[in-house]
Amino acid sequence: MKKNHYVVIMAGGIGSRFWPVSRSGHPKQFHDMLGTGETLIQATYRRFAAYIPAENILVVTNVLYRDILHEQLPQLNEPQVLYEPVGRNTAPCIAYAAYKIQKRDPKAVILVSPADHLIKSEEGFRQDVELALDVAGKQPNLITIGISPTRPDTGYGYIQYHDDGNAQGLFKVKTFTEKPSLEIARTFLMSGDFVWNSGIFIFSVKSIIDAFEEHLSELSDLFKGIRKHLDTAQEAKHIADVYAKAKNISIDYGVMEKANNVYVIRSHFGWSDLGTWNSLYEEMHHDGKGNASTGDVVLLNALNNVVKEYTDKLVVVKGVDNLIIVNTPDVLLICPRDQEQSIRDIVAEIRQNKGEKFT
Amino acid sequence: MKKNHYVVIMAGGIGSRFWPVSRSGHPKQFHDMLGTGETLIQATYRRFAAYIPAENILVVTNVLYRDILHEQLPQLNEPQVLYEPVGRNTAPCIAYAAYKIQKRDPKAVILVSPADHLIKSEEGFRQDVELALDVAGKQPNLITIGISPTRPDTGYGYIQYHDDGNAQGLFKVKTFTEKPSLEIARTFLMSGDFVWNSGIFIFSVKSIIDAFEEHLSELSDLFKGIRKHLDTAQEAKHIADVYAKAKNISIDYGVMEKANNVYVIRSHFGWSDLGTWNSLYEEMHHDGKGNASTGDVVLLNALNNVVKEYTDKLVVVKGVDNLIIVNTPDVLLICPRDQEQSIRDIVAEIRQNKGEKFT
Repeated sequence: MKKNHYVVIMAGGIGSRFWPVSRSGHPKQFHDMLGTGETLIQATYRRFAAYIPAENILVVTNVLYRDILHEQLPQLNEPQVLYEPVGRNTAPCIAYAAYKIQKRDPKAVILVSPADHLIKSEEGFRQDVELALDVAGKQPNLITIGISPTRPDTGYGYIQYHDDGNAQGLFKVKTFTEKPSLEIARTFLMSGDFVWNSGIFIFSVKSIIDAFEEHLSELSDLFKGIRKHLDTAQEAKHIADVYAKAKNISIDYGVMEKANNVYVIRSHFGWSDLGTWNSLYEEMHHDGKGNASTGDVVLLNALNNVVKEYTDKLVVVKGVDNLIIVNTPDVLLICPRDQEQSIRDIVAEIRQNKGEKFT
Repeated sequence: MKKNHYVVIMAGGIGSRFWPVSRSGHPKQFHDMLGTGETLIQATYRRFAAYIPAENILVVTNVLYRDILHEQLPQLNEPQVLYEPVGRNTAPCIAYAAYKIQKRDPKAVILVSPADHLIKSEEGFRQDVELALDVAGKQPNLITIGISPTRPDTGYGYIQYHDDGNAQGLFKVKTFTEKPSLEIARTFLMSGDFVWNSGIFIFSVKSIIDAFEEHLSELSDLFKGIRKHLDTAQEAKHIADVYAKAKNISIDYGVMEKANNVYVIRSHFGWSDLGTWNSLYEEMHHDGKGNASTGDVVLLNALNNVVKEYTDKLVVVKGVDNLIIVNTPDVLLICPRDQEQSIRDIVAEIRQNKGEKFT
């Protein structure tokens, strides 16, 4: 455990593709999506707490989630939580954390991680993380962890790298591609020099702040302007100003795609972003007919459905295939698995027609 | 209103094809299936009360439904209700009522009607009923009301008749056919001399008892044997004996198909047996995309579904076609409309695996 190792858990998302379970008031990262007994953010925290000093694990989240966060992670002290007044994607989130950490420890090495992903080998993950933290502590690089793709997924970002046989296990990144078409995803998969972008980044605080100054100077100017108010009673007020002015932009698009000191480590762990009902389906137990279900569910002559029953209801599904069926106490959703990307639109439509009650 | 006119409402069925709404403890006839504000049995009773003496309207039902029946039809006096210890199809039910009524009034003319059908013109119905009662009071015939078929329904019984231009509006019946194949149903529809069997029968008590003695003598012997106990304190005990011995047989199969004095009146009213979710769907309001729903239901890019939401849930149905979706407080059923005949089997399977709680 090194005193200058920091983890920033990004927990501000709404997870709207997991509607109706994930709601703006209680999003996905605060649910036990896999039925493990832990919520996703609890699992993420626990994973890092084994080798990162507890006081160095920070969480960035929306101010709306203050209560639920402290309920689920009571071990967090208030200075470890960074509240965003509004979500502005990952670049402002990471910049906020970086400037806060820089003020506490200019020699910090930071790992940034989503709160809501599935890591299938704790040991492989730790090995990759420790390598990345070690390298990022010595070299001014921006490091990401790439996942060997197993299918031409069109919902993920892809990273192309120079396979130069680097003995250290780090490869220089060539390109980032967000959500390619199926055809392009197939080409990527076949070429063998692409990995999925896990959204996990590792860098020294100096390297990332240098990168913000170079590639997103508007954003870094905003944070530099309020630097003296961080960790003071004035912080929230000034952060509100910064977020009102900050562009909505991802770290991938705003920094990683532009920087030429980005490296990727090929992961030694199974991973899923658990971004959609289909990705959850992939991780669930399947019956002999490709159905995955939780709750009191009877499937008759039905194939490849995912059925999540969250009440004490008996659900009988007969003669239908490839559906997402989610029953929560106040909403029932039925939608084909291949239309799951439209769940975001459904949520928007429901919000417009029914108000915020159901979203 | 004639003092010798009687109505027998048959209300002992379970309506299992309407599961999960219709349950053995609270079957279809005791539900307001159409959202009219009346349950089906209340509508049936009300329809006859306008022109049949109140004390002559009898209900035959299972002893299980004593409480719910008196709750829904508090105007019924106990001697108007005939309790079956067990369902044995329509022949024993009608025989029981016939022997009871014969003891009260040997000159009675009886109309027998299911409790749970939809009659779409009260006036046309009354006209047909009054004609049938009038004829049955004068002639020793067994009369049924036939419905002009509008589609080759394979769930209905068909009646073929001699179209001899009978001025009275009665036609002699040639054949009864239960639930034909689609091909045969199409032939029937095209031939023009078939009507659907409405399950409504009219006859004098003498004619039907004569018919029982001729065609189902085992059954009539059972009732003749306990005749003296009817309307006494011993009735229930003796009826239990009779029903333990009686065969399960329909009036159609046991009597009507065999008798040669059966006539049909072609109805002047729209009708549905409301036997299945599809037949209910036919009677519901359809949106521009062929969907019929009740409750808080949002249909997006979905065609020809029937969605019945019985709780206060929001139901979102996206991108699926031709489904039956029924959500009750304890059961959710999803099944293609063209597999509705298998709902009976589903109920049997659920009863076997989950006990009686859900059925």
